[in-house]
Amino acid sequence: MKTVALLTDFGLADNFVGVMKGVILKINPQLSLVDISHQVSSHDIVQAAFLLRGCYKYFAKGTIFLVVVDPGVGSERHPIIIRSKNYFFVGPDNGCLSLAAKEDGVTKIVAIENKRYFLKTISHTFHGRDIFAPAAAHLSCQRRLNSFGETLSVIKQLDIARPKASKGILKGEVVYIDRFGNLVTNIDQPLFRRTVRNKKLKIKIKDTEIGSVASSYQAVRQGRPLAVFGSFGLLEISLNKASAKRLLGVAKGDSVKILVR
Amino acid sequence: MKTVALLTDFGLADNFVGVMKGVILKINPQLSLVDISHQVSSHDIVQAAFLLRGCYKYFAKGTIFLVVVDPGVGSERHPIIIRSKNYFFVGPDNGCLSLAAKEDGVTKIVAIENKRYFLKTISHTFHGRDIFAPAAAHLSCQRRLNSFGETLSVIKQLDIARPKASKGILKGEVVYIDRFGNLVTNIDQPLFRRTVRNKKLKIKIKDTEIGSVASSYQAVRQGRPLAVFGSFGLLEISLNKASAKRLLGVAKGDSVKILVR
Amino acid sequence: MKTVALLTDFGLADNFVGVMKGVILKINPQLSLVDISHQVSSHDIVQAAFLLRGCYKYFAKGTIFLVVVDPGVGSERHPIIIRSKNYFFVGPDNGCLSLAAKEDGVTKIVAIENKRYFLKTISHTFHGRDIFAPAAAHLSCQRRLNSFGETLSVIKQLDIARPKASKGILKGEVVYIDRFGNLVTNIDQPLFRRTVRNKKLKIKIKDTEIGSVASSYQAVRQGRPLAVFGSFGLLEISLNKASAKRLLGVAKGDSVKILVR
Repeated sequence: MKTVALLTDFGLADNFVGVMKGVILKINPQLSLVDISHQVSSHDIVQAAFLLRGCYKYFAKGTIFLVVVDPGVGSERHPIIIRSKNYFFVGPDNGCLSLAAKEDGVTKIVAIENKRYFLKTISHTFHGRDIFAPAAAHLSCQRRLNSFGETLSVIKQLDIARPKASKGILKGEVVYIDRFGNLVTNIDQPLFRRTVRNKKLKIKIKDTEIGSVASSYQAVRQGRPLAVFGSFGLLEISLNKASAKRLLGVAKGDSVKILVR
Repeated sequence: MKTVALLTDFGLADNFVGVMKGVILKINPQLSLVDISHQVSSHDIVQAAFLLRGCYKYFAKGTIFLVVVDPGVGSERHPIIIRSKNYFFVGPDNGCLSLAAKEDGVTKIVAIENKRYFLKTISHTFHGRDIFAPAAAHLSCQRRLNSFGETLSVIKQLDIARPKASKGILKGEVVYIDRFGNLVTNIDQPLFRRTVRNKKLKIKIKDTEIGSVASSYQAVRQGRPLAVFGSFGLLEISLNKASAKRLLGVAKGDSVKILVR
Repeated sequence: MKTVALLTDFGLADNFVGVMKGVILKINPQLSLVDISHQVSSHDIVQAAFLLRGCYKYFAKGTIFLVVVDPGVGSERHPIIIRSKNYFFVGPDNGCLSLAAKEDGVTKIVAIENKRYFLKTISHTFHGRDIFAPAAAHLSCQRRLNSFGETLSVIKQLDIARPKASKGILKGEVVYIDRFGNLVTNIDQPLFRRTVRNKKLKIKIKDTEIGSVASSYQAVRQGRPLAVFGSFGLLEISLNKASAKRLLGVAKGDSVKILVR
């Protein structure tokens, strides 16, 4: 069975996610539905884009990603489908799809305009149910992309903080904090290697200094800080079996510096 | 595949929902299981009934809704199956199924009595696992309704707050608050239209006054209050990109008045 | 379809669970995936073992349980597959699988070593995605157990608190507290029956005394304490329609005494 993977900021307490799945399975009952997360912070497009980029490539080719983080629902932002080299992305054109689609390589963008693929009544507040879910379901039934609407040439991009390198200092920031309190930075492994090579380094975050990059949480004693390339492929600051967020007092957006000697 | 949609107050931290799904798939492995919500407030039958009524009709015909919000577990309330015009509803006869089933049109009610459809051992505290889940699973295997137990003529109804209209004032109340802090009232669109027609109106909730009904959140500036007919088909009081619950200080049960001039 | 049931401490806010499911369905798209819980307390192996033992036997024969509560990720603990009489268990060899597997009867244990069954790149921090999920998926495709790695003769066991009986006193403790605030003890029904027989009893927990074991929550008035054998098959201390945890001020690990007269 084909997979539709869902990512929203709807939470799990209301019936919003359930009703979207009801709509999808009504159109195509032969699907696997996978939840990526529904606990994106309300209206946080960047967080959704980050979580999607961090996981899409692990899914089977042809997977349809349905992303509804849509503070502009009911306004003029386009509902879109992006076809990339290996996947399909369905959601509002507000940047939430852009990081993943760009990384995989965009091959076509269409606006979702054909009312035949909408629910009959469109609410003002819940296009996830009325437009995006049915579009994803019809797409999974092999509808031609051109039948959804006109082809677009560009999508909205996101302004994402990028690390800066200068004179032996690599300056990044914390872009995500996971459930365990691990601090995920925007410093990826290729950039790190180019900057640090085999030189000695010191990593500074708030009042904490770390002298090397570890190969597992167990490289340090319990409760001690370490730096490690985590599952996003990005440098993370962690504590062994404890929350770096809480114990180091770090928040999203805080800076992390790597000093190369 | 047929869908069984689950709605409970079991939360997601314990293994209660997982074990119900295990029981269901053991009996019928060819099913799609959809979670409506498992975060109904503990024992809140009215909330469950409201969430179910707000979503059932978006599911495919023949969907089985399995609702376990069951403060009376182990007492004498009947476990029941309701067949409505398009769906099946399985749960305790305490009102949690009543709003949706009534709206769709009840065609038959049976008590779940046939021990062949129960698990072999019945606990005193978890009929969701021991009675309701296996009943829903056997029902999905096309068992005849009469084989479950005796036909009942009535089900327990809920006392739901209804809006009152008199002398140019429509008085309702907040019956649900969603994750985004939107305040869902019990005022539906047909009633609203009958009362307001094309006259001028003023909506009062706590210290806030709103002069019109908007067609999207974006109709007002960020952080400003608005009234909108939301995805439940009911009048909602919201803030654009902020929580009306928090910022207007409103709780479930608070009254909302529409003054027509 | 075969079932893979997942139990982790990953929570639902990050994309960790979703990406594991993506990995699994990429290898075997014809599976039902069931969540037991992803809200095991961070790194709490005993809690995971307890939740698994409390539900595994309700699943269909042949179900694969994928348990990732893995504080030692990246260190030398083995990833393992246990075949028991009726099921398969996949996870780290840290005890999280041991209670369920032992109860069902272990028939074979293998280390997961064959890199053909791993993802191509193995992170230091997320073996759930890179090793355990693909192993479970390949196992569901009927791979021979011996093809995963060498046979092991023992697995790590857990030190679980056991109740003590002496001179008319049965002393146990609270080992789990569920969403409703019910206090689950480690006293099972056979032990209880052997100790109490038909004699009078008094159950003491903190400042509360209970004089009998009830057959449902409704045996006492609303808000009153009772003892009942709950859905885990263990003695639970509860309040009718209220939280025993909150109102009796009891925490995990607190002792419960049964005095037999």
